[in-house]
Amino acid sequence: MAHLGRAEALRLLGTVSLGRILFTQQALPAIRPVNHLLDGDDIIVRLHDGATLASVVAPTETDGVVVAYEADVIDPDTHLGWSVVVTGYARRVTDDEEMASLASRLRPWVATPVMNAALRIRPDLVTGLRLTV
Amino acid sequence: MAHLGRAEALRLLGTVSLGRILFTQQALPAIRPVNHLLDGDDIIVRLHDGATLASVVAPTETDGVVVAYEADVIDPDTHLGWSVVVTGYARRVTDDEEMASLASRLRPWVATPVMNAALRIRPDLVTGLRLTV
Repeated sequence: MAHLGRAEALRLLGTVSLGRILFTQQALPAIRPVNHLLDGDDIIVRLHDGATLASVVAPTETDGVVVAYEADVIDPDTHLGWSVVVTGYARRVTDDEEMASLASRLRPWVATPVMNAALRIRPDLVTGLRLTV
Repeated sequence: MAHLGRAEALRLLGTVSLGRILFTQQALPAIRPVNHLLDGDDIIVRLHDGATLASVVAPTETDGVVVAYEADVIDPDTHLGWSVVVTGYARRVTDDEEMASLASRLRPWVATPVMNAALRIRPDLVTGLRLTV
């Protein structure tokens, strides 16, 4: 098992579109699969329902909340691959123009006509593991 | 998107051997890929390093700590599939005989001669989603 540097970890994260956002819901650890894209070093995620989004970052929360975001590619047979975890502040994307620009690049999980909510995660802490033989 | 019942969610969890354990590390959300097996309704996981295990459940912790465990199978192209999340108390497996029995069934992530530590998670809360067209 080898530790990855920040740049390599973010690069790998950008090679996939699926990941999982970790947050706290009613004082319990929670996780949801979502899709993401990288915007510079930031991770943009769309949550597939408004209730979950509201659990992660309340509409009244402007300073953001700390979340973790994980993505991995691991071979189910050999158990080889990589896992990257990003920890940082997540904020709602509220600017209409920014949202429109992101919506054109971010594929929703479930087909819906309008992209109405997204989060921007600033990667304060990036850790990555490569599972090797 | 359809919600799954507890029995169906646990059944799906048992069809795969990879998942991710969620815990709190230095007050931050953390996640690690692990492999698992079902022992009755309990989820047995082996962590791939002792430091992570100690972060999840301190050796002095006998009552267990609340963790979440997630597994999913999602098609990267169609985004169809399922995700199951189990929340419950995790305790270290300390009985030698129990450990030996589990070790024979639980494949380690990284090849190591001896299985030295495992966690048993009792699924208090089981939620599952099926992502459909």
